[in-house]
Amino acid sequence: MPVEVSQKELDEFFHCALDLVKEAGQMVRSAIQEDKQVETKASFADLVTETDKGVEKLLISKLSEKFPGHSFIGEESTAGGTKNDLTDNPTWIIDPVDGTMNFVHTFPMVAVSVALAINKEIALGFIYNPVLELLYTARKGRGAFVNDAKLKVSSCTDLAKAVVMSEAGSGRDQERIDLIFQNMKNILPRAHGIRSLGSACMNMVMVAGGNADAYQEFGIHCWDIAAGKIIVEEAGGYVCDMNGGPLDLMARRVLCASSRELAEQIVKLVKYMELERD
Amino acid sequence: MPVEVSQKELDEFFHCALDLVKEAGQMVRSAIQEDKQVETKASFADLVTETDKGVEKLLISKLSEKFPGHSFIGEESTAGGTKNDLTDNPTWIIDPVDGTMNFVHTFPMVAVSVALAINKEIALGFIYNPVLELLYTARKGRGAFVNDAKLKVSSCTDLAKAVVMSEAGSGRDQERIDLIFQNMKNILPRAHGIRSLGSACMNMVMVAGGNADAYQEFGIHCWDIAAGKIIVEEAGGYVCDMNGGPLDLMARRVLCASSRELAEQIVKLVKYMELERD
Repeated sequence: MPVEVSQKELDEFFHCALDLVKEAGQMVRSAIQEDKQVETKASFADLVTETDKGVEKLLISKLSEKFPGHSFIGEESTAGGTKNDLTDNPTWIIDPVDGTMNFVHTFPMVAVSVALAINKEIALGFIYNPVLELLYTARKGRGAFVNDAKLKVSSCTDLAKAVVMSEAGSGRDQERIDLIFQNMKNILPRAHGIRSLGSACMNMVMVAGGNADAYQEFGIHCWDIAAGKIIVEEAGGYVCDMNGGPLDLMARRVLCASSRELAEQIVKLVKYMELERD
Repeated sequence: MPVEVSQKELDEFFHCALDLVKEAGQMVRSAIQEDKQVETKASFADLVTETDKGVEKLLISKLSEKFPGHSFIGEESTAGGTKNDLTDNPTWIIDPVDGTMNFVHTFPMVAVSVALAINKEIALGFIYNPVLELLYTARKGRGAFVNDAKLKVSSCTDLAKAVVMSEAGSGRDQERIDLIFQNMKNILPRAHGIRSLGSACMNMVMVAGGNADAYQEFGIHCWDIAAGKIIVEEAGGYVCDMNGGPLDLMARRVLCASSRELAEQIVKLVKYMELERD
């Protein structure tokens, strides 16, 4: 049964989350230059630190205290065995440190990512890079912003004039690597260029801000892209599945672009593997 | 015949260039958000704008006025037909906008790059990213700095724990593309990850600052790497040819890393094409 939420409630959710995202960002910024306890997850290139865990704990504990009826999907809770279940209930989707590998290396492309889904649709999104001091926010129907400036995607509709964000990713099995590089080899000769920041969030906000024109990746998770989806859409961009269909948040794939025309040109050039759903 | 230059003269060269690099950076920062006149050079993905030309003209005219006996190698003068000739004479090697494609797209990885070679060795290097307000400088034997902070490469000696900067580049012939992606495919399964910022300078300063561990690319030019070379070396890093030999500034190839051990692991995994020398 769909949940009804008033604008006043949404305002409260927005401002509460905004304050917490800023607090989480301070934790990430102080921790990035410090020594880190690093553990591996799915591969030797899939890492987690005490900061990922601490930031997620902060966000979930404070949000659930304030909004006891809400649900949560968090990267590190999931890694710890909690089952993901995206229902109609207001659900906070959290990546405490998107770009953990970057964080471990002090590579500045890191972000706290928080989204709120209601009736399985993203209503609010926050991406905060505390190293570069870039705070991206979006509310459904109200536009997207970086700090205080309104975001707008580029006017690009032609792959031949597009910069396409693409990631090699943290998976290390050969079939996956082959497919990822084949996708890039298909795109490159037809495009202005390929860039990789090592963070789905940072790739998506580059598209939202018109600094890049598209982004494609498979292997990502819902917490990597939930906030980015609404930020790109509210900036005027198009977000879909790598097969051109509607985005399935749990299907581990994303394609976003400044325009539907551009997205459709990329759909023809990329393939993906089916991966275990979130 | 080797040229002799006093520390006092070097001081003067350094401070004069520093002021000009800051002025050049202001030009790049004001121009990046404006409409641009874009022309293509070697391929549809090799671009030049009036800002590249204007910044190079500023730097060469002011430096040659101040130091009339000095020589110059500039990206856009070379594209205009000026022959490159690296002699023992003090020679300013200039890339007015490294990352022109990024500049055209407002992707924030752009830099003014200026180096001074004396007796064919780099004595001074400047890389200024005016969007992120990062000013990197180095003097032979005196260390490397970003703004006022001393730079130090990471302690990484093991590819399995390295982030390796690698670029798809702006060349569009198939043999070159195949080789570039094969190099990345050889590196990825053995490394923490690959990142691409679309600017040789920004890739090199990531290594110098310990934010990434290595960078390899063929197809680059001397003006892309001259300043980066001394900044990485003065930060404690190792810079060489992709074949492991001494860097040949005009050979269109570079490999740099936080340590010689790490560089040698990458040498075994990468191949390159011989390209026309600078």
